[in-house]
Amino acid sequence: MILPYSHTPTLLSRDYARQLDSQDPLAHFRGEFIIDDPNLIYLDGNSLGRLPKRTATRLREVIEGEWGKRLIRGWGEGWFTAPQRIGGKVAALIGARPEEVLVTDSTSVNIFKLVMAALEIKPGRHKIVTDDLNFPSDMYLLQGVARLVGEEYRVEAVHSEDGLTVTNDQLSAAIDADTALVSLTHTAFKSGYVYDMPAITELARRAGALMMWDLCHSVGAMPLSLNECEVDLAVGCTYKYLNGGPGSPAFLYVRKDWQEKMTSPIWGWFGQKGQFDMNLDYEPAPGINRFLAGTPTMLSLAAVEPGVDLILEAGLDRVREKSVRQTEYLIELWEALLKPLGVTLNSPRDSARRGSHVSLGHPDGLRIDRALIEEMNVIPDFRYPDNIRLGVAPIYTSFADIYEAMMRFKRVLDERLYEKYPRERPEVT
Amino acid sequence: MILPYSHTPTLLSRDYARQLDSQDPLAHFRGEFIIDDPNLIYLDGNSLGRLPKRTATRLREVIEGEWGKRLIRGWGEGWFTAPQRIGGKVAALIGARPEEVLVTDSTSVNIFKLVMAALEIKPGRHKIVTDDLNFPSDMYLLQGVARLVGEEYRVEAVHSEDGLTVTNDQLSAAIDADTALVSLTHTAFKSGYVYDMPAITELARRAGALMMWDLCHSVGAMPLSLNECEVDLAVGCTYKYLNGGPGSPAFLYVRKDWQEKMTSPIWGWFGQKGQFDMNLDYEPAPGINRFLAGTPTMLSLAAVEPGVDLILEAGLDRVREKSVRQTEYLIELWEALLKPLGVTLNSPRDSARRGSHVSLGHPDGLRIDRALIEEMNVIPDFRYPDNIRLGVAPIYTSFADIYEAMMRFKRVLDERLYEKYPRERPEVT
Repeated sequence: MILPYSHTPTLLSRDYARQLDSQDPLAHFRGEFIIDDPNLIYLDGNSLGRLPKRTATRLREVIEGEWGKRLIRGWGEGWFTAPQRIGGKVAALIGARPEEVLVTDSTSVNIFKLVMAALEIKPGRHKIVTDDLNFPSDMYLLQGVARLVGEEYRVEAVHSEDGLTVTNDQLSAAIDADTALVSLTHTAFKSGYVYDMPAITELARRAGALMMWDLCHSVGAMPLSLNECEVDLAVGCTYKYLNGGPGSPAFLYVRKDWQEKMTSPIWGWFGQKGQFDMNLDYEPAPGINRFLAGTPTMLSLAAVEPGVDLILEAGLDRVREKSVRQTEYLIELWEALLKPLGVTLNSPRDSARRGSHVSLGHPDGLRIDRALIEEMNVIPDFRYPDNIRLGVAPIYTSFADIYEAMMRFKRVLDERLYEKYPRERPEVT
Repeated sequence: MILPYSHTPTLLSRDYARQLDSQDPLAHFRGEFIIDDPNLIYLDGNSLGRLPKRTATRLREVIEGEWGKRLIRGWGEGWFTAPQRIGGKVAALIGARPEEVLVTDSTSVNIFKLVMAALEIKPGRHKIVTDDLNFPSDMYLLQGVARLVGEEYRVEAVHSEDGLTVTNDQLSAAIDADTALVSLTHTAFKSGYVYDMPAITELARRAGALMMWDLCHSVGAMPLSLNECEVDLAVGCTYKYLNGGPGSPAFLYVRKDWQEKMTSPIWGWFGQKGQFDMNLDYEPAPGINRFLAGTPTMLSLAAVEPGVDLILEAGLDRVREKSVRQTEYLIELWEALLKPLGVTLNSPRDSARRGSHVSLGHPDGLRIDRALIEEMNVIPDFRYPDNIRLGVAPIYTSFADIYEAMMRFKRVLDERLYEKYPRERPEVT
């Protein structure tokens, strides 16, 4: 379509979205993904990234070629070193050294390992500081570890007044000489608030506590500088902005200085020095490898690599730049179209403090979420009590996706299409 | 080929193997597997089972159909319930109730969870009894847990005199009023010795200790009766006789009576009651689900199901019957062909006490293993110090495979083809 000279597209026109897409240096990466239904707007916030075409190809190779034909020999032909090899690529995304990162186990299991190890090297300190914006699984794990290690241990969760964030002052007041570990999620899973990593890590460091960041909603969506910030520990998943597939293995980061001083609580054979000597007494492997436990889930692990490669190719600076533009655009559309209809912005207005998803609030949020999915072919996700989470994955989300989603959102409200859906989530059994 | 009436095939003839295959009621299951190189004899004992054709098909569906097209909706369309659904099928293989088994995490992580949980419900008892035939990872995990829970705890490993097994008397002497848990591997990974599950479980029970069996080398190769034996806890992998693929998730079994009394040490969100209520205080899910931790690795998990289905279709009684016939046949060939050349039998001669692999010993075992792989296109595996482990997987191993493997083994010795290989394993880095 050729636009006439006189045409200056405005925010609310589809042409404006097209123009933004035509100027997007990352636009061609969309072609790297399987997009089966072009009418589906996928903004699920970002619970599960799309399937990269290369991953489908790579998995056929791993399954039919490596497992099917090479059989057990596959272990010697790249499987054994996959946690480190893919970990090294993730390291490049988070500002860490390759020998500081492994892709292994789930985020939950990795948090358990690192928190147990952290408390052990901070004897005499009995407090873990977190906040009530942390992801529930992180909270449960901290509570579970505190229960295991002794009744003198406790988890102190700083309360967020506004549901968006906690202030550095609040954290500073909580972090004291009894604090062993500060554990926070870098991009809050509900609001998308991005914490001030350098400042908060410094707060922990000054108090003699260790700092652990959960990077689940940050990795692959923005540059991170773990080494530069002197972060001690980190974990993150690979199925959101890294597009590693459902439940793909997570990563863990242990700063080099700590590796030889820390011990994983789970002494599995992949963390043993000289694993195939099959000695019967545990001796931790040197370096990061001691944080491996059992045999890696190779198929799910192999699925992580092509997605990481794509983000490396796109470049995190460009990804972040597009992410900011897209969430800004989404918020501008919200302001023009949805705010007048009673929808609130539950994410920071300041893009410097905002991750790659935007949460929009409405008392009928759960029903609107259902209507968007069932009636409108838009997939957001929903987080209690009222957050409709819209994730942009700059590697494949187009501006046209965002435009369409907001127009359909408006239609759900205008035509009250959500009213036929129940107010309560059906019981998950 | 038509045999003349007068032909009576003898043990050492290829025709005899063919005859055994022609009488094998499970022979057609071989066609269910990808067999790329018909000349390759795959007896890797049984570190990684072959790829079922159905698994290749199922994985394409999960990857390209479910992840690729259904995206996040996949969780509501079968992914969430996969640990329990596939666990229920594994339960049928081990003589347990469906609600007693989950497929999740690695064997190592599952051992950690169950041992920690076991010690907690046996307060005042400070000993874990095992033996030095247990798999190294199991030993490390027991040692690691003992270190975590307090200096009054210890692991007592009964010493095997013959490297084949330990006697019930030895175990009985070690299990006392201070014993919280007895932890053994049901089929020993080196010798293939099968422990007396009913008698040993009863020894533990009488002493007031819990019994945990590692079923890695048993599940899918023989019928098991966990409920009937009143076994408390069990774990096992799915990548050996269940053909679940490299590093496929493991299973755990917790006897129904214990589930509400036990607590997993790893409090992840999949083990939370009402997971998507996203409450910030941990409350364990009812029943077996509390032993889940993080998000399941769906691709690797999906790969488990078709392999389990195949074993269920074949029937464990028939699988075991064929397994015994095949290991007997292998041992008869060893006796005729290899024993005269100095190869020892490092597995039980009594089939009632033998699993589905046979270990053959030779001082040059490591080099023979290499020569079998490199020169002969036979894949066994090797376990220090001198065990060449030959696994039969009755669902796809033919008698002809075994015949060929033993003839090629003989050739390696006759022609001293192993001499060019180094005596030491190259350092794995």
